[in-house]
Amino acid sequence: MQTPWEYRYAHRTQKMKSSVIRELLKLTEDPAIISFGGGLPAPDVFPVKEIQAACTHVLEHDGAQALQYGTTEGYLPLREMICRHTVRYSVEVKPENVLITSGSQQALDFIGRLFVNRGDYIVVENPTYMGALQAWNAYGAQYITVPMDEDGMIVDELEKALRIGPKFIYILPNFQNPSGATLSLERRQRIVELADKYGVPIVEDDPYGQLRYDGDHLPSLVYLDSKFRCDDGCYTGNVIYLSTFSKLLSPGLRVAWVIAPEQVIKKLVQTKQAADLHTATFNQIVAYEVGKGGFLNEHVKVIRRVYKERRDMMLETMEEIWPAGTSWTKPLGGMFLWGVLPPSMDAAEIFKTALSRKVAYVPGSAFHANGGGNNTMRLNFSYCQPEMIREGMTRLGLLLRELVVAN
Amino acid sequence: MQTPWEYRYAHRTQKMKSSVIRELLKLTEDPAIISFGGGLPAPDVFPVKEIQAACTHVLEHDGAQALQYGTTEGYLPLREMICRHTVRYSVEVKPENVLITSGSQQALDFIGRLFVNRGDYIVVENPTYMGALQAWNAYGAQYITVPMDEDGMIVDELEKALRIGPKFIYILPNFQNPSGATLSLERRQRIVELADKYGVPIVEDDPYGQLRYDGDHLPSLVYLDSKFRCDDGCYTGNVIYLSTFSKLLSPGLRVAWVIAPEQVIKKLVQTKQAADLHTATFNQIVAYEVGKGGFLNEHVKVIRRVYKERRDMMLETMEEIWPAGTSWTKPLGGMFLWGVLPPSMDAAEIFKTALSRKVAYVPGSAFHANGGGNNTMRLNFSYCQPEMIREGMTRLGLLLRELVVAN
Repeated sequence: MQTPWEYRYAHRTQKMKSSVIRELLKLTEDPAIISFGGGLPAPDVFPVKEIQAACTHVLEHDGAQALQYGTTEGYLPLREMICRHTVRYSVEVKPENVLITSGSQQALDFIGRLFVNRGDYIVVENPTYMGALQAWNAYGAQYITVPMDEDGMIVDELEKALRIGPKFIYILPNFQNPSGATLSLERRQRIVELADKYGVPIVEDDPYGQLRYDGDHLPSLVYLDSKFRCDDGCYTGNVIYLSTFSKLLSPGLRVAWVIAPEQVIKKLVQTKQAADLHTATFNQIVAYEVGKGGFLNEHVKVIRRVYKERRDMMLETMEEIWPAGTSWTKPLGGMFLWGVLPPSMDAAEIFKTALSRKVAYVPGSAFHANGGGNNTMRLNFSYCQPEMIREGMTRLGLLLRELVVAN
Repeated sequence: MQTPWEYRYAHRTQKMKSSVIRELLKLTEDPAIISFGGGLPAPDVFPVKEIQAACTHVLEHDGAQALQYGTTEGYLPLREMICRHTVRYSVEVKPENVLITSGSQQALDFIGRLFVNRGDYIVVENPTYMGALQAWNAYGAQYITVPMDEDGMIVDELEKALRIGPKFIYILPNFQNPSGATLSLERRQRIVELADKYGVPIVEDDPYGQLRYDGDHLPSLVYLDSKFRCDDGCYTGNVIYLSTFSKLLSPGLRVAWVIAPEQVIKKLVQTKQAADLHTATFNQIVAYEVGKGGFLNEHVKVIRRVYKERRDMMLETMEEIWPAGTSWTKPLGGMFLWGVLPPSMDAAEIFKTALSRKVAYVPGSAFHANGGGNNTMRLNFSYCQPEMIREGMTRLGLLLRELVVAN
């Protein structure tokens, strides 16, 4: 039976569809399946004890504030803490440059709402984070895809894209989701210069920046841009920078942040006010309590150690088992690596067989804004224990051997 | 210095403006001001102890799940609890009829996103909840306002509005924000029948339904509608029903819910997935832990007692002090009452003088979708202690006496 609601959907719903990943992941709920499909942090590194202590402290000392409505901008001491964290990387920001969001997905949605008219072009890496495409599809975005290699977006191709007149560039410079690639320093500098030359701003999405297992931290685009775009020591530049507590603390708290010029933050605040008033006060104060004494700087070392071991196990198993003709990225950090099969093979087709062998991944086509990538797959290495990674990657590798031979 | 972002706003931002209430409330942060302006629950009734016990229990027993990403629909045991609560009022719903949102404001935003094309008409009470107008203005909504009296929306006027062909009717039947009016049973039945006759669906916003201080609970519109709109014992009707834990438990947790036909919930889930993935897992599990044993049914009695006393104090002071020519509603529940001044007086003008006398309210014009209401004001009675209500309403009453005489 249809309700009157079903004849009343707005035009923008025509582009809405449930995420492919989501539908696939439903198939992997069987506990016998070793899934590299999700993008979940390891629950074994959640700082449960510290969060519990923070909850108790906050409710004992500040229950009336923590459980009450809060300001749309977010809890001021938390925004100040984020400023101090950001200043460590030499980007001068004030609390007026910071908005707390309910996860970075919300920031992506707000950016779409604020900047995307139907038909506007956005420059994205190919492949790119599917959640961003989902957020911006709702506003009628179109995409210009720029190819990548292991050093990230290929900058010569970017300049061509900028001549088309896109609304902004979306880029994940560190340990990109899905590819695991890290943008080189030289390319970072070139991208910031090109963005300035063409007057096209940048959305820098950095959920994994601190999860580096090899090599040295590279400066963020917002830092490189801020060197020539500050007023009164405060950021007024070209970049909107996103990061989150989801990977360092807990994704279940839904606390993330945006750094942007003050005028942009003001518009984002108006957007958020109409969208959900504010991010949960309690969660913000708890995140502040856990983080204020520097605990996260120590805790991130634990996460790095655990994830590095898992990444290494995944790479080692692939080296050993995966057949000739397949290749993969060697991420310096983050949570994902990217598998490439021979061009004639289809990762979405193989998925069904993989499920029957009790192993899962995400077919890479979902991350391609304008199609393609049928022979690619995203593999998560943060969630499973090392021995499960070994077992799962062996299952998958043996399956691929069979298929490559049959191919 | 302008950034490239400022030349790149989408068309929909042109209608965005910061809430009038919000700007006014900033002026009331002076602790010497007795403010009836906000819409805050009393922090003295937050069940801090129970929430703390729930946090501890959840983190000890279920930390890995509570701190992890969750499903977009929401935590299943919480949705089941909401079903049991709803069935008490004879509306048969399954978890598939329930979506958890980050506060009811988010549900209002999603409804706008899903149903409102630029220029669509929405029928609203006059006055109505400003947050709904803010959410829907962003999607280019227009409004048909229907006048109210103490029994709520005047139904004969509604039928005229329905002939214009609105997208839906938005109504707060219980202790309406801002007017405090409660829709009579007869009108509830008539509205559900008219909505059915014209094929126009209803958004029923019910944040305060359980905060009744006098008289008996009246059936919700979703209940009246469900009597002739069920399939397999499950709701497939005309009404989207919104409620929240904000007034019973804590607004700082941002946990609310939508009840709707399953097909509508599916679309809302897709919307939420792109907007913020899911509501904080931890908060949902904590709300479930606090509520599952029936605690909220007991706790609401405490809230009722506290708020009734405050409402009575406000009414009593008004009777005593407020001058002839002013009038006000006598709400049966909720958190607000509505003051009406002589037609020649302007509550926004008087606001500045009131502030200098250290008392604040919200001028009523902000709640009028199509203008008007300059001589009205919203007064909150839930937040301040009774003696502060007495003092503040005396200050305001004495000021109004002076002004009425001068008028």
